[in-house]
Amino acid sequence: MQTIDTLIFPRWIVPVEPEGTVLEGIALAIDQGRILDLLPADVAPLRYAARQSLQLPTHCLLPGLVNAHTHLAMNLLRGFADDLPLMRWLQEHIWPTEARWVSESFVHDGTQLAAAELIRGGVTCVNDMYFFPDVSARALAAAGLRASIGMIVIEFPSAWATDAEDYLAKGLVLRESLRHDPLLSFCFAPHAPYTVSAATLTRIRALADELDAPIHMHVHETAGEITQFEQAHGCRPLQQLDRLGLLSPALMAVHMTQLDDAEIARLADTGVSVVHCPESNLKLASGFCPTARLDAAGVNVALGTDGAASNNDLDMFSEMRSAALLAKAVANDASAVPAHQALRMATLNGARAIGLGAQTGSLVPGKWADVIAVDLGDLESQPLFNPISQIVYASGRHQVSDVWVGGRQLLRHRELTTLDREMLLARAEHWRTQIATAH
Amino acid sequence: MQTIDTLIFPRWIVPVEPEGTVLEGIALAIDQGRILDLLPADVAPLRYAARQSLQLPTHCLLPGLVNAHTHLAMNLLRGFADDLPLMRWLQEHIWPTEARWVSESFVHDGTQLAAAELIRGGVTCVNDMYFFPDVSARALAAAGLRASIGMIVIEFPSAWATDAEDYLAKGLVLRESLRHDPLLSFCFAPHAPYTVSAATLTRIRALADELDAPIHMHVHETAGEITQFEQAHGCRPLQQLDRLGLLSPALMAVHMTQLDDAEIARLADTGVSVVHCPESNLKLASGFCPTARLDAAGVNVALGTDGAASNNDLDMFSEMRSAALLAKAVANDASAVPAHQALRMATLNGARAIGLGAQTGSLVPGKWADVIAVDLGDLESQPLFNPISQIVYASGRHQVSDVWVGGRQLLRHRELTTLDREMLLARAEHWRTQIATAH
Repeated sequence: MQTIDTLIFPRWIVPVEPEGTVLEGIALAIDQGRILDLLPADVAPLRYAARQSLQLPTHCLLPGLVNAHTHLAMNLLRGFADDLPLMRWLQEHIWPTEARWVSESFVHDGTQLAAAELIRGGVTCVNDMYFFPDVSARALAAAGLRASIGMIVIEFPSAWATDAEDYLAKGLVLRESLRHDPLLSFCFAPHAPYTVSAATLTRIRALADELDAPIHMHVHETAGEITQFEQAHGCRPLQQLDRLGLLSPALMAVHMTQLDDAEIARLADTGVSVVHCPESNLKLASGFCPTARLDAAGVNVALGTDGAASNNDLDMFSEMRSAALLAKAVANDASAVPAHQALRMATLNGARAIGLGAQTGSLVPGKWADVIAVDLGDLESQPLFNPISQIVYASGRHQVSDVWVGGRQLLRHRELTTLDREMLLARAEHWRTQIATAH
Repeated sequence: MQTIDTLIFPRWIVPVEPEGTVLEGIALAIDQGRILDLLPADVAPLRYAARQSLQLPTHCLLPGLVNAHTHLAMNLLRGFADDLPLMRWLQEHIWPTEARWVSESFVHDGTQLAAAELIRGGVTCVNDMYFFPDVSARALAAAGLRASIGMIVIEFPSAWATDAEDYLAKGLVLRESLRHDPLLSFCFAPHAPYTVSAATLTRIRALADELDAPIHMHVHETAGEITQFEQAHGCRPLQQLDRLGLLSPALMAVHMTQLDDAEIARLADTGVSVVHCPESNLKLASGFCPTARLDAAGVNVALGTDGAASNNDLDMFSEMRSAALLAKAVANDASAVPAHQALRMATLNGARAIGLGAQTGSLVPGKWADVIAVDLGDLESQPLFNPISQIVYASGRHQVSDVWVGGRQLLRHRELTTLDREMLLARAEHWRTQIATAH
């Protein structure tokens, strides 16, 4: 009889590996932050004495969702400017507002608000790109979330850094100071081929090789950006990245709405991960990422919400459903991206993209206990023929009842354990007043 | 001082008429089932003595949502067969299962389960098309919902009727018996141009004129159905309907994913309403309805969920968001179908399509008090710059706290007042067991 931390007895477990598997009558054992065992529920109490034991009779356990592309602090600009073309939205609303307001305090409060939304929505791991990544890294780790922190680089000054060299230097100092935190990992985050020079990208590529760090970048978000790039550089952005040696398993190429067959083959050959943001691409009319073709070619496709200013939430349940639905229409094939594949995109594929595929993204013994429980007991989930279908096509994030990251419970019966709801509401209202008054 | 039934004091009211309006500090007065007044919250208690008074300090009042295309009883087949091409899904799964199971009892239980989901999701009016419409009409009225009941007609036998004449006769008897129920209205529901003959459609058109009843029909759902129709009849289905005289303000043409410019102009000229089902069209890879072009041409575009077997829910919040997002990508214009327009599609446009535009669909004195309250007080709705944006782009149906239809409260603090949750769960489980065992 082994004493362990936690035993969970759910109605179902969907471990994501093997894909499409639904387990019933199985308990999940957690010890020292990691998944120890999945074993028959009747055997579990005989083998393990758990300090904490939890019955979840109408729930399905899943690996925590991985939000593979966000700008968390932008939660404070949720719904601030909608229904505008991308460049007007950026140039007339988002950039001036960021220039006016982005500070350590803005990033701290926005990231905390986002952390609460992520946890309540079943996200256990997030890949963030924003200014003051030192502030967001600390806020996310304090909230108990697993985070991949982008060392952001862009060729224009901000409150965080003055030029590309300064961004890089600050990012590397940050990485050095926090890289031993078990919740944090770091990647380079050059904003996009059209905002970061070839020289800087070459430098980043060398550093990424040296430090074995991933690279997180917006690539081919819109057709317009490609046309402009071609006029300036005589090639498509992806060709430029290829020439500079950036196409590799380390690269997370976000959006990718414009891709021809040769480019898809090249992504597959080089092992690049694509991060698909279906709702952001729709809302900003950016285009359609060919996810079914990418998956068929063997490309690892992950999912992200993008920032709440463009989306307008961090809802990975909605994003998973949108990804599954949109893929069918884009492929003209109702069997494209079935539910289990959308769930893999939102979990294991995200973990792999970030470089944490061996650590999280599926419920496999030895991985971190990044686990969520989804309650399928209410009317909207009935009748229940298949929990994976119900989760992807007919569930909302409010059905997430409990969340663990590295075995630590961050959500308990819908209550946050590491963040103060009233304080978050007050800070959000503070910023709303400031921003709305000035606008 | 006038004694009235109800006074509601919300934080905001979005009346939908005038479009885009957000009211603050205004109370809503309800009496004898109808909206009596919208007046300053400080004046309301001086003018009216309400039997019931309700403070909703973090909520927005909206007109109840209108789900303009459903097959409610199919809730019992939610998630029963997914990720399949339309014709395989229908021919190998849905039709055989319906042939085996559809009965008065199936329709009763499925419609009740659907009614609970509709109410909990803020839908106050539904336009249904299914077998045994007598059973669904009574179940919906008993639940307190406003319903437009389709007198279904299809040229093949079912448990409900044997041939077109029998469908029509039974529908007309039903209409005659229930048409004085203030919650019910009736329309003809010929399934589609490819399943209902020209002779039957001609007869329906004459009856619809005589009875001043709307016509609810699937039209141009897929490209394949149009090709087949052209091969058989030498014209597109919409041309056929035009020749038969069915294009008029009485027609609700559902799906409409295949439309050229001349067809859009013809719809506008003749006053046809289009019912857009974005998530069903995506999931079944049916195509993209050009909603922005239809709206610009002056066509009334409403929204529907379609049946839960193809969707897989009756979530009009999700449908509203999908409609707003998808329209932008399809139009290649991020300013297409802004939030207030999507909300109008989900409320007033639906009421107009059904022929109830003067009775429901907006919060205007004299209309039925079909009202919902959406709680915008939690973390996922902060910061709140504009409630309409928050409702369309960042809210879930679980935020609906209270629902009234004709002044009667059907949902109170998330609790159903007219339906028994435990009984519904038990009946859904009964059907799941039956269907899953036989399959």
